[in-house]
Amino acid sequence: MDTILELALNGNQRSIGRLISLVETNSAIAKDIMKQIYPNSGHAHVIGITGSPGSGKSTMTACLLKHFKSENKKVGVIAVDPSSPFTGGAILGDRLRMQEHALDSSVFIRSMGSRGSLGGVSRATSDATHILDACGYNIIIIETVGVGQSEIDIVKIADTVCLVLVPGMGDDVQIMKAGIMEIADLFVVNKSDLEGANKVATDVQIMLNMIEKKEWIPPVLLVSSVEDTGVQEVKNKIYDHWTYIHNSAEGKNRRYSLQEMEVKGILKEDISCLVETLFNKYKKTGYLDDILNRKTDPYTFAEKLIKEIIK
Amino acid sequence: MDTILELALNGNQRSIGRLISLVETNSAIAKDIMKQIYPNSGHAHVIGITGSPGSGKSTMTACLLKHFKSENKKVGVIAVDPSSPFTGGAILGDRLRMQEHALDSSVFIRSMGSRGSLGGVSRATSDATHILDACGYNIIIIETVGVGQSEIDIVKIADTVCLVLVPGMGDDVQIMKAGIMEIADLFVVNKSDLEGANKVATDVQIMLNMIEKKEWIPPVLLVSSVEDTGVQEVKNKIYDHWTYIHNSAEGKNRRYSLQEMEVKGILKEDISCLVETLFNKYKKTGYLDDILNRKTDPYTFAEKLIKEIIK
Repeated sequence: MDTILELALNGNQRSIGRLISLVETNSAIAKDIMKQIYPNSGHAHVIGITGSPGSGKSTMTACLLKHFKSENKKVGVIAVDPSSPFTGGAILGDRLRMQEHALDSSVFIRSMGSRGSLGGVSRATSDATHILDACGYNIIIIETVGVGQSEIDIVKIADTVCLVLVPGMGDDVQIMKAGIMEIADLFVVNKSDLEGANKVATDVQIMLNMIEKKEWIPPVLLVSSVEDTGVQEVKNKIYDHWTYIHNSAEGKNRRYSLQEMEVKGILKEDISCLVETLFNKYKKTGYLDDILNRKTDPYTFAEKLIKEIIK
Repeated sequence: MDTILELALNGNQRSIGRLISLVETNSAIAKDIMKQIYPNSGHAHVIGITGSPGSGKSTMTACLLKHFKSENKKVGVIAVDPSSPFTGGAILGDRLRMQEHALDSSVFIRSMGSRGSLGGVSRATSDATHILDACGYNIIIIETVGVGQSEIDIVKIADTVCLVLVPGMGDDVQIMKAGIMEIADLFVVNKSDLEGANKVATDVQIMLNMIEKKEWIPPVLLVSSVEDTGVQEVKNKIYDHWTYIHNSAEGKNRRYSLQEMEVKGILKEDISCLVETLFNKYKKTGYLDDILNRKTDPYTFAEKLIKEIIK
């Protein structure tokens, strides 16, 4: 175990991959690994990229990756699909487009699905991010397949959240609904050569004007990631946002609340394990029959269990 | 308080509405109310109706309601929209179609949104279901706006889950993805007069043949709720399903697992409250700074907190 950890911290990609898989699937040693990893982390800039399917997030990610690499940055990409049962190093669908980077040691690409992630995809993604961070990746891009609630939970792990939009998708209502206006730090209108791109940008700007003003005003950028126009500007704004979160009181608050969310996530998972153990113990006592027959009720029973585990 | 409870148990609709609101928004007395309500519950048949927006769930619900009423059943309808901030007795959008029943004392209609539901919409819906059950409603229909993960969590409360499909929506992939094939007990192809209805039914049948066989084989029914054809058959199958869950080992297992899920939900909510209290206590100790500065890590800190609350 210690050898894998050592090799990974020295940048060995195979070991990094194995480490992520271990943490994802084996809760018994996951914590030990993470405790050893953690002191080495905290340097990477984590970028979340989200948006509807078809908005060109993958092309956008590949394009950004190229720009970061040209600055000699080591880049990790975690592609998350909460609805997919696939996980691991498999290069799926869109990932093919990134294959040109696959043999490059300064780039690490990983797909994450729901299967095998014991604490949920969100937990696994967070841990994988820390691992890549500790193993020397300067930039970590978390890309989601869609823009639903689970995707938003995942992308919230990021320091900087980019929402990719595209003309003709009628995304506006969906975005408002999903509450993503509030969490996006950058709005990127992709496929800027398509008709309607300017209108999408204007609509977003109008929506932005309606929500509470903060110190950081999310820029709305027009990009064509296929033609690689505007991506440099996106990269610069991502850097600006890093400066903001590290140099303003608002940014500090954000980092605090992210950190708090992470601790709560871990804590709730630990407690869930305890609850499961208790349930299995109680299963034989016929408490479910008692509830179904109305001899007791679930509220009283939950209280009884709580009293049993809490000081 | 006791008067409201008494009036509600005697069928007074205004008091039932107030009781649901109290339980939804005031956690302090919610448990006491629910403990008193619970022994009176356990008689109603809870029917979950889900499906994509536009599949005609509301018309279908209104139609079923009429059929149940014609048998002198008291029917409660809970319309749940997890993404809507609206809650309460308000009759929203589609609900207008049900207004003809609004002044009828044998029918109780309620909308539920996310705002104000302290323990989440799922918890609030479950409690509201018990209240209506205890207050004498024989049939309780839980209707969701969509078919996402939160809708599925809600509809899982039901004894019998109906999935409403409609031709031309390309729903099949979405359904497979959302994992609803596994939880639906009845498939209703609505708007059967539209072209493609038979194909949808066949496709569902094919998908059903691919999944694990159980004692209860979900029927696939063609319905036109506007013309009221096929709805009688849906009602009959819903009754058949009730017989199945009460008279087979498989059905008993299902009721057990539903009950277990409910207890776990209550327990996790209770624990979340404890965790919040602890966090607020710790906030002043600067633990977040320690984590952000890598003096400790979230895993170790979570363990420390757990040790503090657990026996």
